[in-house]
Amino acid sequence: EASVKVIDGKKVAKDVRDEINAEITRMKDSIGVVPGLAVILVGDRKDSATYVRNKKKACEAAGIKSYEVCLPENSTEEEVLKYISDFNDDPMVHGILVQLPLPSHMDEEKILHAVCIEKDVDGFHPLNIGQLAMRGREPLFVPCTPKGCIELLHRYNVEIKGKKAVVIGRSNIVGMPAALLLQREDATVSIVHSRTKNPEEITRQADIIIAAVGKPNMVRGSWIKPGAVIIDVGINPVEDATNPRGYRLVGDVCYEEAIKVASAITPVPGGVGPMTIAMLLSNTLLSAKRINNFK
Amino acid sequence: EASVKVIDGKKVAKDVRDEINAEITRMKDSIGVVPGLAVILVGDRKDSATYVRNKKKACEAAGIKSYEVCLPENSTEEEVLKYISDFNDDPMVHGILVQLPLPSHMDEEKILHAVCIEKDVDGFHPLNIGQLAMRGREPLFVPCTPKGCIELLHRYNVEIKGKKAVVIGRSNIVGMPAALLLQREDATVSIVHSRTKNPEEITRQADIIIAAVGKPNMVRGSWIKPGAVIIDVGINPVEDATNPRGYRLVGDVCYEEAIKVASAITPVPGGVGPMTIAMLLSNTLLSAKRINNFK
Ligand SMILES: NC(=O)C1=CN([C@@H]2O[C@H](COP(=O)(O)OP(=O)(O)OC[C@H]3O[C@@H](n4cnc5c(N)ncnc54)[C@H](OP(=O)(O)O)[C@@H]3O)[C@@H](O)[C@H]2O)C=CC1
Ligand SMILES: NC(=O)C1=CN([C@@H]2O[C@H](COP(=O)(O)OP(=O)(O)OC[C@H]3O[C@@H](n4cnc5c(N)ncnc54)[C@H](OP(=O)(O)O)[C@@H]3O)[C@@H](O)[C@H]2O)C=CC1
Repeated sequence: EASVKVIDGKKVAKDVRDEINAEITRMKDSIGVVPGLAVILVGDRKDSATYVRNKKKACEAAGIKSYEVCLPENSTEEEVLKYISDFNDDPMVHGILVQLPLPSHMDEEKILHAVCIEKDVDGFHPLNIGQLAMRGREPLFVPCTPKGCIELLHRYNVEIKGKKAVVIGRSNIVGMPAALLLQREDATVSIVHSRTKNPEEITRQADIIIAAVGKPNMVRGSWIKPGAVIIDVGINPVEDATNPRGYRLVGDVCYEEAIKVASAITPVPGGVGPMTIAMLLSNTLLSAKRINNFK
Repeated sequence: EASVKVIDGKKVAKDVRDEINAEITRMKDSIGVVPGLAVILVGDRKDSATYVRNKKKACEAAGIKSYEVCLPENSTEEEVLKYISDFNDDPMVHGILVQLPLPSHMDEEKILHAVCIEKDVDGFHPLNIGQLAMRGREPLFVPCTPKGCIELLHRYNVEIKGKKAVVIGRSNIVGMPAALLLQREDATVSIVHSRTKNPEEITRQADIIIAAVGKPNMVRGSWIKPGAVIIDVGINPVEDATNPRGYRLVGDVCYEEAIKVASAITPVPGGVGPMTIAMLLSNTLLSAKRINNFK
């Protein structure tokens, strides 16, 4: 256990944010441009409000100007589209985020597609995903959470090329783009999902595991090859009477068991979570640089 | 060996073409529309000319009107773009194919992107690939060769859901979209490529193998799990003095060995090859139906 490295996402995210901060200062000093991120929140879901507040705080700390629009639950699609269209045209805004989920009376796909691709810092547009999937193409933005996973591997000098990687989960926002990214870096990738038979048998072959399922402690110690590196994306609340809130957060990987087998692992919280926001700031900076042709 | 099924791509392709033919007649009789496919050939590569000629012949046989443009090697990008733009606007044309490779002085990506996505029957546009990769989205067209591979599995009642599939090769036109298609049908997919260590070990676990590498006989009998189903996309010329042409075509899978282990296998030639053109006709029909809102 002594040699197991706990991958400190909080620390890496701070390093990344410091670097972003320095770049933003350099850009501001040299061309007078400050990156701007617009966030649109519809409805009054508590968790969404928390996410938006955290994003805003992180923007401010990094020197990114944030523009926030909060609309009531019963807003119309047209109102949301109008804001998006204004932000698309606004030269002060370099990234536009629509906080999901939207109220059920709205067409999520239609609204997300209204964000112009140059400002789609989430990187969820199918054109962007296609470019991620294709050899010889470059996506405009890499989706934040998978980008954060790979950044952690890079910063901890985990070799990806030629390694066997298993991604558990294939959602549009985490699992699938994470698999595409690993493949771009020449890992041999297998994707495990809810229809997979014997997921443990496949997972046990992996040198690198990315788990993004949403099932607390699903990946047990016996699923893990000794020495594997584990990135645990899951954030799952489980009841915990000893915790003042009555619950605590755990990952998709059983940390206590995994840490005895893996060579490195991200904790939950403090692993991938902080990286996601850092990558959002990184994408916003990237966008501001690209739009202003600043190198 | 008696129980091994040789997957007869020629026969299936003929069945598909007959069905297409019937649909085209029905559409013509009911709304007077005949599907049209435009093919643009630049330069005088012999193999490209052969492909174009075969496509044209197949179109005619199926009742699709083909429009052919042959431009000299030293044409300009603008000339090609002009033809594409005319075909984009032409209501008689429902599919546009630019035969690859283009002469080296042309920007392939730029030219392919000029084809409007509603007529991109090859399905290579990144927006289309993104939609193929994403859950809950539907691509306008599925690329022809991978579509042909899956169609063969369907017509031979090979169950895909929950099966382990290995795709060898990850090109934009075959391997990668084939993997995405298998995943859409709930296979557990692993992708083997040139950086994969121990490809045989991974391949040996597969219930379904799709090989699209371009290396004659690379997949040996020992790579194959008894009872696996094999789709061999490779078309490789190898020297053969006994053949009047001096060569013959073989696949990426060593057929003589594979047929002793597999439960079903496509031959080369006569497997995937004939399906590719059949799927091009299928995509052209699909496009004509969609553009004319014909069900
Ligand atoms: N750290 C961060 O910043 C972020 C964390 N998360 C967390 O990551 C987790 C996953 O999120 P997300 O991708 O959005 O979730 P989704 O629910 O969209 O996707 C879950 C995926 O897991 C697969 N799955 C479900 N059950 C099983 C099973 N028993 N075995 C194998 N695979 C299974 C599903 O398969 P199928 O496709 O077959 O249904 C699906 O592909 C959640 O805990 C979420 O909170 C998410 C985003 C950001
Ligand atoms: N039947 C039909 O209608 C068609 C047949 N074909 C045939 O299919 C074959 C593949 O075509 P295409 O996809 O265009 O070829 P590409 O050359 O574009 O791609 C070949 C793929 O195979 C991988 N590869 C190369 N060497 C190895 C190896 N030793 N082990 C594992 N993987 C390897 C490459 O990996 P990496 O990405 O790492 O370089 C690459 O992803 C060819 O024989 C072609 O003629 C193609 C199209 C249509």
